[in-house]
Amino acid sequence: MASLSVEEWLADTQGWVEAELERALRAERGHVPAVLADAMEYAALGGGKRFRAALVRLVGRWCGAEDAACSAPAVAVELVHAYSLVHDDLPCMDDDDWRRGRPSCHVRFGEANALLAGDALLTKAFAVLARAQAPWSAPAVLALARAAGDAGMVGGQVRDLGLSGGKVTLAQVEQLHAQKTGALIAVSAELGALCAGASAQRCREAREWGATLGRTFQAVDDVLDVTADREQLGKTPGKDAAQRKPTLVAALGLDETRRYADEQGERARVQAHEWGGPWSAAGLGMVDFLLRRRS
Amino acid sequence: MASLSVEEWLADTQGWVEAELERALRAERGHVPAVLADAMEYAALGGGKRFRAALVRLVGRWCGAEDAACSAPAVAVELVHAYSLVHDDLPCMDDDDWRRGRPSCHVRFGEANALLAGDALLTKAFAVLARAQAPWSAPAVLALARAAGDAGMVGGQVRDLGLSGGKVTLAQVEQLHAQKTGALIAVSAELGALCAGASAQRCREAREWGATLGRTFQAVDDVLDVTADREQLGKTPGKDAAQRKPTLVAALGLDETRRYADEQGERARVQAHEWGGPWSAAGLGMVDFLLRRRS
Repeated sequence: MASLSVEEWLADTQGWVEAELERALRAERGHVPAVLADAMEYAALGGGKRFRAALVRLVGRWCGAEDAACSAPAVAVELVHAYSLVHDDLPCMDDDDWRRGRPSCHVRFGEANALLAGDALLTKAFAVLARAQAPWSAPAVLALARAAGDAGMVGGQVRDLGLSGGKVTLAQVEQLHAQKTGALIAVSAELGALCAGASAQRCREAREWGATLGRTFQAVDDVLDVTADREQLGKTPGKDAAQRKPTLVAALGLDETRRYADEQGERARVQAHEWGGPWSAAGLGMVDFLLRRRS
Repeated sequence: MASLSVEEWLADTQGWVEAELERALRAERGHVPAVLADAMEYAALGGGKRFRAALVRLVGRWCGAEDAACSAPAVAVELVHAYSLVHDDLPCMDDDDWRRGRPSCHVRFGEANALLAGDALLTKAFAVLARAQAPWSAPAVLALARAAGDAGMVGGQVRDLGLSGGKVTLAQVEQLHAQKTGALIAVSAELGALCAGASAQRCREAREWGATLGRTFQAVDDVLDVTADREQLGKTPGKDAAQRKPTLVAALGLDETRRYADEQGERARVQAHEWGGPWSAAGLGMVDFLLRRRS
């Protein structure tokens, strides 16, 4: 990392995790119906920033892990993220036909196959962690399942649907974001510490740092939905307002949401400083990357 | 077991696993949106034969485990089974409005909430296994994920959809059944051996026995869809033929399917005899129960 910019390191991480994902997805391909394997690869290998995998790898290296140890958790969080996008895009959910600059999975493969591909991607995330046969395999499964499940990401999605169309407060939006997107980002940082064999204290700190990054990420996301165009974003912009989604912009307005993002970014910077060590510059770079991103 | 009939023991197991499921589902209820928690309970606590949990418990006890050790895997397989029914019933899949004598989950809670409740039930299955913090936790996660995922249950569901409406061969139906329903039943038996700390050889034998029971179970299921009425079945009968589903009856006809079920049951009996011991009578009773069931 010492000789790379954050952008270069993130690009390197994209290539690394894409190859690891491909390997995980193709391991049992002979037993998987072709249309299912294709839909899973379409959803999971379709690009993306790989921010969650980068967070696993960044915190993992920061805590002393080699890339080989970070592979399974990095793949697992990206599989969970990919599944969540496939299910979110379905007609009965956000009904979005466009994702990462391409037709969504159900537009390409049909609703039933997309639903099942999502199910299978989620399932594979846990298989990948368990197959690592590391001392942290079971704790990692528990952490990821809690972050992804009814008290985490899925719970947040239900809150999102329930709050759509009405007036929302900052507290409501913060609770929903903490579950819907924050939990998976927080656990990505936690899994990095976990797969490095870090102490329980350090794992908690990593999760906290990830949660702060998650708030930063989501605030920027809500701003971009208002200000970015479709080509930049790779998905349909302006949908939050059109569907009267419970966003920070709906609760606070655009300017206050920008200020909120900056505040959260500053908190994340302070934590990265406190950890110190040769990887703190990368941690600071990650914060800047989140604040500056345009897609 | 010695003093109980198979029916009494299965009824006892139903009560046991229902209580364990309730405990697992309510552990984090304070953090879960009410509609999601309700939908998950509706789907997972809505009765059912609890055949998969009974198989975990039966093989577990047979291999020397206490009930306490069997709890997590028994809950996990029932959560996976419940999730699969919720997703299978969705309009984009089998579009079934009726399940276990009640409206299906999406009819009661709406499509989006049903989809998400299914996702959360699947996720919780892995959390429950990991939370057991047993030496077999990670191996159990891997076994269950493989049985439930793209090369197992989900793969079988895709094959089912792909083969619907056309002529099918016995080989096609056997492959689809092995994945769609057989894999989860086989892994239920395997998990029983695993949580008892049985040898790798015994775990394999248990999975084999479960796979044979799965073929028996599915053959009887295909027969019942033709011969049972709605009140007996608790779901809409005759749908297989109406939707031209790839069933054993479609491949073999009704009489040959009955013979197939008997053959598989006989194989399962032979294996139960070979294992011997005080629980072999219960194993034989389970085979008879599967062959005699009317719902």
